Amino acid sequence: MLSKVTLDDIRPIAIGAGILGTGGGGNPYLGGLHLASVIREKGPQTLIDPFALADDALVCVAGSIGAPTVSIEKLPEGTEMLRALRLLEEHIRRRFDAVAIAEIGGANSMQPLIAGLQAGIPTVDSDSMGRAFPEIQMSSYLFGSDAQVAPYAMVDAADKAAVVPAAASDLWGERIARNIAVSMGARAGLVACMMTGAQVKQSGVHYTMSLAHHLGERVIEAQERKSDVPQVVADVLDGRVIFRGKISDVNRRTTKGFARGWVRIDRFSNDDRLDIQFQNEMLIARINGAVVTTTPDLICIVTEEEGEPVTTEVLRYGTRVAVIAAPAPAQLKSEVALEVVGPRAFGYDVEFSPLPGGVIGLRPDTSDQRGYCS
Amino acid sequence: MLSKVTLDDIRPIAIGAGILGTGGGGNPYLGGLHLASVIREKGPQTLIDPFALADDALVCVAGSIGAPTVSIEKLPEGTEMLRALRLLEEHIRRRFDAVAIAEIGGANSMQPLIAGLQAGIPTVDSDSMGRAFPEIQMSSYLFGSDAQVAPYAMVDAADKAAVVPAAASDLWGERIARNIAVSMGARAGLVACMMTGAQVKQSGVHYTMSLAHHLGERVIEAQERKSDVPQVVADVLDGRVIFRGKISDVNRRTTKGFARGWVRIDRFSNDDRLDIQFQNEMLIARINGAVVTTTPDLICIVTEEEGEPVTTEVLRYGTRVAVIAAPAPAQLKSEVALEVVGPRAFGYDVEFSPLPGGVIGLRPDTSDQRGYCS
Repeated sequence: MLSKVTLDDIRPIAIGAGILGTGGGGNPYLGGLHLASVIREKGPQTLIDPFALADDALVCVAGSIGAPTVSIEKLPEGTEMLRALRLLEEHIRRRFDAVAIAEIGGANSMQPLIAGLQAGIPTVDSDSMGRAFPEIQMSSYLFGSDAQVAPYAMVDAADKAAVVPAAASDLWGERIARNIAVSMGARAGLVACMMTGAQVKQSGVHYTMSLAHHLGERVIEAQERKSDVPQVVADVLDGRVIFRGKISDVNRRTTKGFARGWVRIDRFSNDDRLDIQFQNEMLIARINGAVVTTTPDLICIVTEEEGEPVTTEVLRYGTRVAVIAAPAPAQLKSEVALEVVGPRAFGYDVEFSPLPGGVIGLRPDTSDQRGYCS
Repeated sequence: MLSKVTLDDIRPIAIGAGILGTGGGGNPYLGGLHLASVIREKGPQTLIDPFALADDALVCVAGSIGAPTVSIEKLPEGTEMLRALRLLEEHIRRRFDAVAIAEIGGANSMQPLIAGLQAGIPTVDSDSMGRAFPEIQMSSYLFGSDAQVAPYAMVDAADKAAVVPAAASDLWGERIARNIAVSMGARAGLVACMMTGAQVKQSGVHYTMSLAHHLGERVIEAQERKSDVPQVVADVLDGRVIFRGKISDVNRRTTKGFARGWVRIDRFSNDDRLDIQFQNEMLIARINGAVVTTTPDLICIVTEEEGEPVTTEVLRYGTRVAVIAAPAPAQLKSEVALEVVGPRAFGYDVEFSPLPGGVIGLRPDTSDQRGYCS
């Protein structure tokens, strides 16, 4: 289990979180450059076991909100997370003890490391998705406990800021935050979801930073050995490679604070084709029109040769890719959770048929039989 | 000059502010019902001369933000202004001494009376437009002094709320507030524009509540005498009746937090037609295609018989109306002001040709020669 994050850990985390992000969470390469600059200045960041948190510790989450397509064009100023965290602290008149991870996917795996380092508090090795999702209310910290998204604070690269002290529900909190994010150019820093250590322990998807790091390390090893990297990714995540082919079409719009669209992949060996629809993240995959995988299970696109994550904002014609389906963490598969993150929550009139198994959210030392042990 | 607002004053204010609103500011009849219920509970509201404010008094503005088309369907909970005011006070950790009027038009003339009554502080007989405008930065308190729109607070009829502690500019403050308002159903209470008494005195359009009241009284008298009410409106405002006819077409969309569109009026006696474009408020009037009046001068539509205001949300085919053009207050006609509220600020490639004269913003007792003396 990872207990601190150093410069050397950035590349494995970027790869692992890029894959777990199912397309979203923000560009992991750019997030990694940002994290590296902060670690160079401040030193490694401490990562703590969620079960080491005091029950009454005060924890928040930190992340970027917006469209991943924007995240590669509108670079951060660098202190968005810290300024949003301090603004929220000022509003609630209390100090946070630790920062948890809203989503382990993409650059949003790194924002809580950056925020924690800049604020001088540890990052919790726990997120609330075990992947990435496009909307705030899709967080197990929220639907798995009585924590609420508001009060929250948002800050952009300029000096625009907002505090939302209350929202009628977490869904309304998302709607307000999304529109504020649009006013901030579809990219803003968000610090939200005040909760206690007890709530983190109860509702989080734990050890996902350790998992992202482990996954990245296994990918790098497999690249060096020139083995079948996509298969290694599937093995680590207890999933399977559902398709290999070439991207033949992409339709992607940046609209209302999201990147929405679809990607088509043609199989190398025959006329089969895979279609994936996304809203920041990959949500539903169909082979020749038949649904094969849906949210909350993970649909991850990696390059065919290197097994590197292919996120939504860099999907392009001609890339040779493999698509991996992996079982979602248990926290996302309860009845309550599926109402928020299941296919119907995204407007797809499809039942969720869970993939068997899964390792995301398990303690590293209990899941070694499935290969997840750093 | 009016020094308090009683139940008897509501109808004249609703008429006068409805006319001054140039179509916007929110439905004055519904605003009047709301104000009446608060006065019945709390008694009359004190109105103070802006020059009676201490230079270091702390003043804010209070009003509704959104689309007037929504204001007649989505009724307020009733304490939006008070809750927003308290939220902003909590954020800045100071108490306000008085509430000024953002815009004298429509129901937004009454919101500062309601907020003041509920909070136990007086309302200042001064606004920042002498009319209504659709966007926050179009306020003489902002472009006429070094006050800024942020920090501000917004609250809706449910328990959704937001504080914006900082904005990169007043225009960005408007953009963020507009998107928050959209998240709140295109109607929210806004308390903003912290300023000192000195700033109010320097930049306000003064005595406009008194003017609205006086205008309403003159309309009621003229209705009783069955005289030419639209001509009386023009006389009080030092303007002129530019058109009389029947509304023959209306195109109105509620979009991005505004009501946008145009109205066409056919003259009774010949084939002439008047076209007016609006964004909440009437902005530009053309007779047979030739521009006759533009913002910031006032374009006011009243019913032909009764001289009652016809606001944007109640424009409809068949209504017989008169259109009055009236000179804007001097505060809106400086070079700095015209950059924010002139025709080019709204995208019309037209020079502003000011109507001569004008009484809006003058001291009642110095303007009696033009008929404005309560």
